[in-house]
Amino acid sequence: MKIGRQDDPKSAISTSNEETILVRGRDLTSELIGKISFTDHFWLLLTGAYPSAVQRRVLDATLVAIAEHGLVPSVQVARMTLAAAPEALQGAVAAGILGCGSVILGAAEAAGRFLAAILERARGGELEAGASTVIEEHRAARRAIAGYGHPLHKSSDPRVKALLQVAREAGCAGRHIEVAQLVERLVPRLIGKPLAMNVSGAIAAVLLDAGFPLLALKGVPLLARTASLIAHLLEEQQRPIGFTLTNAGAAAIEYDGPVPPGFTPSND
Amino acid sequence: MKIGRQDDPKSAISTSNEETILVRGRDLTSELIGKISFTDHFWLLLTGAYPSAVQRRVLDATLVAIAEHGLVPSVQVARMTLAAAPEALQGAVAAGILGCGSVILGAAEAAGRFLAAILERARGGELEAGASTVIEEHRAARRAIAGYGHPLHKSSDPRVKALLQVAREAGCAGRHIEVAQLVERLVPRLIGKPLAMNVSGAIAAVLLDAGFPLLALKGVPLLARTASLIAHLLEEQQRPIGFTLTNAGAAAIEYDGPVPPGFTPSND
Amino acid sequence: MKIGRQDDPKSAISTSNEETILVRGRDLTSELIGKISFTDHFWLLLTGAYPSAVQRRVLDATLVAIAEHGLVPSVQVARMTLAAAPEALQGAVAAGILGCGSVILGAAEAAGRFLAAILERARGGELEAGASTVIEEHRAARRAIAGYGHPLHKSSDPRVKALLQVAREAGCAGRHIEVAQLVERLVPRLIGKPLAMNVSGAIAAVLLDAGFPLLALKGVPLLARTASLIAHLLEEQQRPIGFTLTNAGAAAIEYDGPVPPGFTPSND
Amino acid sequence: MKIGRQDDPKSAISTSNEETILVRGRDLTSELIGKISFTDHFWLLLTGAYPSAVQRRVLDATLVAIAEHGLVPSVQVARMTLAAAPEALQGAVAAGILGCGSVILGAAEAAGRFLAAILERARGGELEAGASTVIEEHRAARRAIAGYGHPLHKSSDPRVKALLQVAREAGCAGRHIEVAQLVERLVPRLIGKPLAMNVSGAIAAVLLDAGFPLLALKGVPLLARTASLIAHLLEEQQRPIGFTLTNAGAAAIEYDGPVPPGFTPSND
Repeated sequence: MKIGRQDDPKSAISTSNEETILVRGRDLTSELIGKISFTDHFWLLLTGAYPSAVQRRVLDATLVAIAEHGLVPSVQVARMTLAAAPEALQGAVAAGILGCGSVILGAAEAAGRFLAAILERARGGELEAGASTVIEEHRAARRAIAGYGHPLHKSSDPRVKALLQVAREAGCAGRHIEVAQLVERLVPRLIGKPLAMNVSGAIAAVLLDAGFPLLALKGVPLLARTASLIAHLLEEQQRPIGFTLTNAGAAAIEYDGPVPPGFTPSND
Repeated sequence: MKIGRQDDPKSAISTSNEETILVRGRDLTSELIGKISFTDHFWLLLTGAYPSAVQRRVLDATLVAIAEHGLVPSVQVARMTLAAAPEALQGAVAAGILGCGSVILGAAEAAGRFLAAILERARGGELEAGASTVIEEHRAARRAIAGYGHPLHKSSDPRVKALLQVAREAGCAGRHIEVAQLVERLVPRLIGKPLAMNVSGAIAAVLLDAGFPLLALKGVPLLARTASLIAHLLEEQQRPIGFTLTNAGAAAIEYDGPVPPGFTPSND
Repeated sequence: MKIGRQDDPKSAISTSNEETILVRGRDLTSELIGKISFTDHFWLLLTGAYPSAVQRRVLDATLVAIAEHGLVPSVQVARMTLAAAPEALQGAVAAGILGCGSVILGAAEAAGRFLAAILERARGGELEAGASTVIEEHRAARRAIAGYGHPLHKSSDPRVKALLQVAREAGCAGRHIEVAQLVERLVPRLIGKPLAMNVSGAIAAVLLDAGFPLLALKGVPLLARTASLIAHLLEEQQRPIGFTLTNAGAAAIEYDGPVPPGFTPSND
Repeated sequence: MKIGRQDDPKSAISTSNEETILVRGRDLTSELIGKISFTDHFWLLLTGAYPSAVQRRVLDATLVAIAEHGLVPSVQVARMTLAAAPEALQGAVAAGILGCGSVILGAAEAAGRFLAAILERARGGELEAGASTVIEEHRAARRAIAGYGHPLHKSSDPRVKALLQVAREAGCAGRHIEVAQLVERLVPRLIGKPLAMNVSGAIAAVLLDAGFPLLALKGVPLLARTASLIAHLLEEQQRPIGFTLTNAGAAAIEYDGPVPPGFTPSND
């Protein structure tokens, strides 16, 4: 059964024979292992080229920024899953990263598309007019403005300032950061309330200015959070809290369905 | 409902308030973002301390070594899943890393436990006697020797030599590498055929010699492969092969169940 | 950190004490186990009420229709994942159902929303005008018409006829089926080529006519395929093909990246 | 690259052409859709034959028994994951079933292997001696006795009695149930404390007595819980509690890592 396009059955990422493994055309053992950092390797895998010093610095900064933020859904999910199924660490990591979604953690790509749409709209014209149009279209379609607003860091997300400063120091701050800050200024008037740029918006802006591929933006929170999940799962093996999280969650929810006469729910 | 141990409901990885996010006691925005690499951050998340230059170099080398090896199961799984469900990149990554198992990709932790068991057994005595005993116990229990043997790189896995050289150059080659090489020498006599140390065995040996936590060893292939999966999923969005993989797989399998009279299967 | 709406922390599905487990208000042990079928239980879990005989028959028919269709992506993914990680059957099932997406297998919900949108548009007016408008809007927005077209069953999907006949025999064929068939007639003129209703379109139409909740439609392919994946994973344990699928897939793809002078890829 | 056994590239589950889909040799559209229940189809997929009335009744009873038990880890995981990533229902279901592990929910297969091991050991001899030996071997190896003990239903799991009664009424109670009850009687003396048979032990015993394949036992909790997860995810779309669960979990855990002078964590 032939499904979908199948006219170009090719891949340019890796090939090998018994003696040699090539990754993006480089000999893995003589050119890469021990010679480049993991961050360099991630950039090489994605693009086929080594990052510049600027690109490496910006990518490291975004990966560090989004890796860890306490007992968020992805972390609790991973720890509960390991408690239930300790035989499969990979299952606990997979469960955790399934929470890298459009609402939490995974908004970098949507934020990047939003910034790119404004630049596309403004092409050859006025940036502010382009931004206003795109924001108003989102508002009309009741779509969230990806990359803005945070439940805890309401007035300003501290990671945003740090990321923008890295981009400025590295000398790669460009049009995407300009648009991202413009949107922050326009939002109060166009949406009716302030929405501070959040870490996903800043990740998208600085990485796009550094030349990172738009279609891989979601890979940054995915890779970063994987590192954090592994740390939480190491701690879970040594100081388990997975079932404590479950119990606390269950205790916070009231059953409001029907009960037969005389039934009393357990206190546990 | 109380399940399992719940006497120590604590975590030491992160906390925050509206202005500050602490990761392992460091201020994320002023001490970490833009200051340390992602590899440093991974080590910090796991252990609570920055890696030494030696530890950073060895960890980078292992992450680079295991990230990518062509169209292996985890990669094909991720690309097919994205072809079927392009709305959820996180789902394709999760499906891929679920193949980081005991047979493929995920053997580093089992290899580390094997090396540690030999050192434990040999404590205060002869290393070779300890190794022989543990290997023979595995053989008696029909358990595989984790970290040895590879379907393509039969006589020697080129990544092993590169990783051991990095450890030697970095000055951290120690007892785990010694045991790992001893096992390679003992195997032909004890098992009856040669089995070369594979990349999982080498990853376990060099990381344990560098002080990496045993219970997090599986995190290295998990994190490394996540980087590679994201690269393959970027390529899948630009040059899709997911359904080509499916068709080729299906064509390789013959249906040998019952058929009604006159039925002819499709050629597709 | 408070994320999202949290004003109604309640659930009406289940509660328990040490002696009794209530599911949707029924005593699990005295009213459900041994008394009702799994299909009845699924309907009860979803809606809080037992299905009528008509509803049970239609739900069974759709679950049977979508469970199995050979070595499709979800099945290959599950079998490869079990080959790599035999220690975690749950991981192989999870990997498989992650392929229940918008392109393959998981289109029932989108199809249901499409049919519901036409009925909403046509409210009090002409069905054909409503359908034409919604189809043309999809076409203008370059959105696929969910529930129509199939790569193998081009002129007609045999499962569609069977499902519609079950609905007619059961006496529940109604407005959603009427719309689904109307769309099939309108498509050649509006889209410019015929697109036969596929199994996802038929599942949506017959279940919505039977009173099944729209927001749970994707649960039908998910539950049905889970049954099929378990059967394939039982076979995989007895007659493994997971790595054969991988090899055939890899052999179908050509590496077209750079190679150093003298490099020859492996034939395997 | 050839990994593993590849000498029998065959599957007997399904084949098709443009007009016909065969499942286990039956014509899906003329013999199965609308003719058999989903439970029958599951048995057919697994074994290639229709279940007897006894087998259908026992399988339905076990699927109903294990589907739902309130806000257990798998359910909380699925609901949190949907809250974070509402674009992918399949991701939330997959995350949930990854918690079908050796500790929670997924013990039916291990329980079945335990019962089978006792019957194998006792072959031609005394059942009680065989059971004692296997229990003592587990105790010596510090392995849990799968299928016994429950955190809430300590003195007796109400689902066990119901399942055993179904098996007796259906007339298929046999050697596996006999062994399972024998173990319950032997445990207090051999282990030093009573451990009541739990639902996983009862599922294994009644299904094995009914002729269900041992290697597919874990498929029963997996399929059953999938039905329950879909119901919880329907409720989550209508009355979200995912983030409430997260907040309650986070509030139950104290951060005990280092903090800089003057830092006060958020109350949220």
